[in-house]
Amino acid sequence: MTTDSANSLQATTLTPVAYVRSCFTERFGIPRQAGLVKSATASIVFANSESNMLSLRGIEDFSHLWVIFLLHKQHYKNPKALVSPPRLGGSKRVGVFATRSPNRPNPVGLSAVRLESIEQGSQQILLHIRGADLLDGTPVLDIKPYVPFVDSIEQANGAWAEHIETPMPVTWSEPARNCLRRLHGESTDKAGEPGSTLQQLIEETIALDPRPAHERIKDGEAGQSWGMKISDVNVRWQVDNGIALIIKLEKLPVNIYE
Amino acid sequence: MTTDSANSLQATTLTPVAYVRSCFTERFGIPRQAGLVKSATASIVFANSESNMLSLRGIEDFSHLWVIFLLHKQHYKNPKALVSPPRLGGSKRVGVFATRSPNRPNPVGLSAVRLESIEQGSQQILLHIRGADLLDGTPVLDIKPYVPFVDSIEQANGAWAEHIETPMPVTWSEPARNCLRRLHGESTDKAGEPGSTLQQLIEETIALDPRPAHERIKDGEAGQSWGMKISDVNVRWQVDNGIALIIKLEKLPVNIYE
Repeated sequence: MTTDSANSLQATTLTPVAYVRSCFTERFGIPRQAGLVKSATASIVFANSESNMLSLRGIEDFSHLWVIFLLHKQHYKNPKALVSPPRLGGSKRVGVFATRSPNRPNPVGLSAVRLESIEQGSQQILLHIRGADLLDGTPVLDIKPYVPFVDSIEQANGAWAEHIETPMPVTWSEPARNCLRRLHGESTDKAGEPGSTLQQLIEETIALDPRPAHERIKDGEAGQSWGMKISDVNVRWQVDNGIALIIKLEKLPVNIYE
Repeated sequence: MTTDSANSLQATTLTPVAYVRSCFTERFGIPRQAGLVKSATASIVFANSESNMLSLRGIEDFSHLWVIFLLHKQHYKNPKALVSPPRLGGSKRVGVFATRSPNRPNPVGLSAVRLESIEQGSQQILLHIRGADLLDGTPVLDIKPYVPFVDSIEQANGAWAEHIETPMPVTWSEPARNCLRRLHGESTDKAGEPGSTLQQLIEETIALDPRPAHERIKDGEAGQSWGMKISDVNVRWQVDNGIALIIKLEKLPVNIYE
């Protein structure tokens, strides 16, 4: 290896410019790609400073942004070279660079998100975004505008990730639906109506089947259920014959955003 | 700022996994986006190891890749919050996060490139790519497959970067064309024929008008010329009334890849 290439492989230190506030507060259940859960709202939080306001000038002219971030809750001591994507059935292993698996040599993530609005508060500048697959607290390294004429390569071959997976049907148990109605009764939303934000968020997230590949084959096993936090609720569901049944919904005791 | 957000802004150290060998050996003249110079070939160089071969398994099933890299020759002490994109005429300033300018708080770049082939040598594993806007020696932090169903957002609004700029017509002076013929005579390519790789590479690169915005307004000024290295030649050109004239072509004395 020449000196030049050795220089190119030197470690470098980067300092995040912002962090994420998200409805996803734990890793399990987060959509595997950005853009799949349209109801997922989040904010990219900058410190309110003149320099940050200038750096963001004109960003609202773009509809979509690239977020380059750190997968900060990945703490593998030895990143695996091979991973088993769920949509390959969980048995076929491919190289980590041929996947978007979070378990990678450098824990760097890339997501295209929709920019909804920008808000300047007293302490913070908030970029309100939609479609994020980002864990709450995610450190953001960089933001770049999505430039369709170079970034949108429609004819690209996505191999086994070519097409979106068919969403899993999501149904509600009576107790879970009652809880959803109660939660909505507490807010200004119409209780359990189609279009209700929390209901949509839960249904879109579960429909993507967050189960790891090795658990998908347990489909229908008696008593097997999964749980995740979404926004300010705890959701628990079962899967039987490819249909998800939400069995329990619990409001979390504290506001996760405090 | 809470402890949590303070943690999210902590510096982190990343070690590149590979580096780039490119026909672009100096910053000036490099296309401002990936994919614009189809004739630009480059290689992403990994050390030949079992772990790297495993990590790349199956990558050849994808036609395009995202390369997340370090803009390693950007050494600004104080990154500017505002930049002046050439296509806004060089006078209008926008925030750095609303541009792809290389002068940014974290010198992290993002390019979608076409994957041509993968080659395992005795010392190195080479991903041969096309359409790169990457400087020779660029350190690569990560590679991810381009997944069209999430990454290709055709309806995204690219604001002032919505459309590709009209390429600048490129013409050749007789001495420059003669030199191109001689260079081709030394290779197996047909001399100066359309489709000749070096000619295409030069024409596609100059057609993008690499001049910085403040020099574009000098268009037609007597004696003003620009130069850049492309592959193993030095190219010098003038611009008059929006037409580029290549006035000189010189073979570089040493092989830049040594």
